[in-house]
Amino acid sequence: MNETIETILKHRSVRQFQEKKLTREQIETIVRCAQAASTSSFVQAYTIIGVTDQSKKQQLAQVAGNQKYVADNGHLFVFCADLHRYDIISKMENVNMEESIASTEKFMVALIDTALAAQNAAIAAESLGLGICYIGGLRNNLEKVCEILKTPKRVIPLFGLVVGYPEKINEQKPRLPLNHIYHENTYQQNEEAYITQLNAYNKTIRDYYNKRTNGKRKDSWTGQVSATFAMKNRMYMHDFIKEHHLNK
Amino acid sequence: MNETIETILKHRSVRQFQEKKLTREQIETIVRCAQAASTSSFVQAYTIIGVTDQSKKQQLAQVAGNQKYVADNGHLFVFCADLHRYDIISKMENVNMEESIASTEKFMVALIDTALAAQNAAIAAESLGLGICYIGGLRNNLEKVCEILKTPKRVIPLFGLVVGYPEKINEQKPRLPLNHIYHENTYQQNEEAYITQLNAYNKTIRDYYNKRTNGKRKDSWTGQVSATFAMKNRMYMHDFIKEHHLNK
Repeated sequence: MNETIETILKHRSVRQFQEKKLTREQIETIVRCAQAASTSSFVQAYTIIGVTDQSKKQQLAQVAGNQKYVADNGHLFVFCADLHRYDIISKMENVNMEESIASTEKFMVALIDTALAAQNAAIAAESLGLGICYIGGLRNNLEKVCEILKTPKRVIPLFGLVVGYPEKINEQKPRLPLNHIYHENTYQQNEEAYITQLNAYNKTIRDYYNKRTNGKRKDSWTGQVSATFAMKNRMYMHDFIKEHHLNK
Repeated sequence: MNETIETILKHRSVRQFQEKKLTREQIETIVRCAQAASTSSFVQAYTIIGVTDQSKKQQLAQVAGNQKYVADNGHLFVFCADLHRYDIISKMENVNMEESIASTEKFMVALIDTALAAQNAAIAAESLGLGICYIGGLRNNLEKVCEILKTPKRVIPLFGLVVGYPEKINEQKPRLPLNHIYHENTYQQNEEAYITQLNAYNKTIRDYYNKRTNGKRKDSWTGQVSATFAMKNRMYMHDFIKEHHLNK
């Protein structure tokens, strides 16, 4: 095991930070690492917005469900899928790219490019001894986020990434069994075995919560996930993305 | 600069591999690293299919536009956005999750989760001295890929990741200027400055190709990207995803 794999394997989300801010050098190193990630056909379909204005951070924290650590951290990056850039390029090159920019394929490309870049940023930050947490909660109200960050049409803020010096380190949550996530040659065809794996994982997760909360929390993973999906969260997303003339 | 950041910054895609296969231990380390990535609300909405069957690899290489390295490498991972798992969980928990699973928000969650996991896998592999290349070309014909890998409804193979011992190391392509990708507090509002940055980058890219091809290749980045977008690639994607009752 090398240093990089150790860094990756010891990841846990950090939600409580010291007051210390990241330096300009740290921020630029993290952004350069993000940019080093692979990108589909070299299109680099993302923009990263660093938020240093404390009132903007507080507004974003409110959108994300009043999560204090969105406002109080070493630095807040907002990772945006960016297809606006190609509108500008379309004008510069005088090439009609409208149908392509608006397509579901390019929407997927932008999401994937953005996430690959973000994960490089996360790993780079963690390798510097910093803690990180993704803030999907920004998607609670993207209209508001776009207003705060003054993003043009076709820029979709996908998530935040808070980075900082950890005040408190959480335990690591066990992941799905490797043989449930990783199949060979074909998707696992045996539904009974599939469910058996999920039940085994439910036991792992119950034991984990039981231990962490001294018996107070008893939920299983499938119970937790079904509750999350039952909530019908962010159902406005389809129309919001369409209003940006994307994902068509 | 630490070892991890060095690994991240020296990334380049590798498209020519030695014949040597990855060991079981290497494969499992890479998958465990993938699983260590952050995941939205802990849903872990992806499945990784390792392809070892040479005839399947050849079929996938054909889909990806006859790219030889898709068949000839140390290992081929196919990263799938997986919302099928939650259909099973819906039955297990007897909770109606249909609308949520089918939503654009959950489609985005699955794409992001899958990409974060994949980038961890990529970095882990590179830290082991292996080379990698993402294979977005699988999206040329997802119906065929799903057939080869026998994936159920609501499993979308997003891309491949080939890994192996590099036979040939390419040069690194320069990325967009940092101040073009990274803005602070608001999205860059000055379109003139934005275009000036793109023109500066065009010069960087022209110089890069000029040097790499002894003057044969003269394309700019915006020229290249506009040609890519003009192609209207994979326009079937919208309907394909809808047929899986996703992204609604």
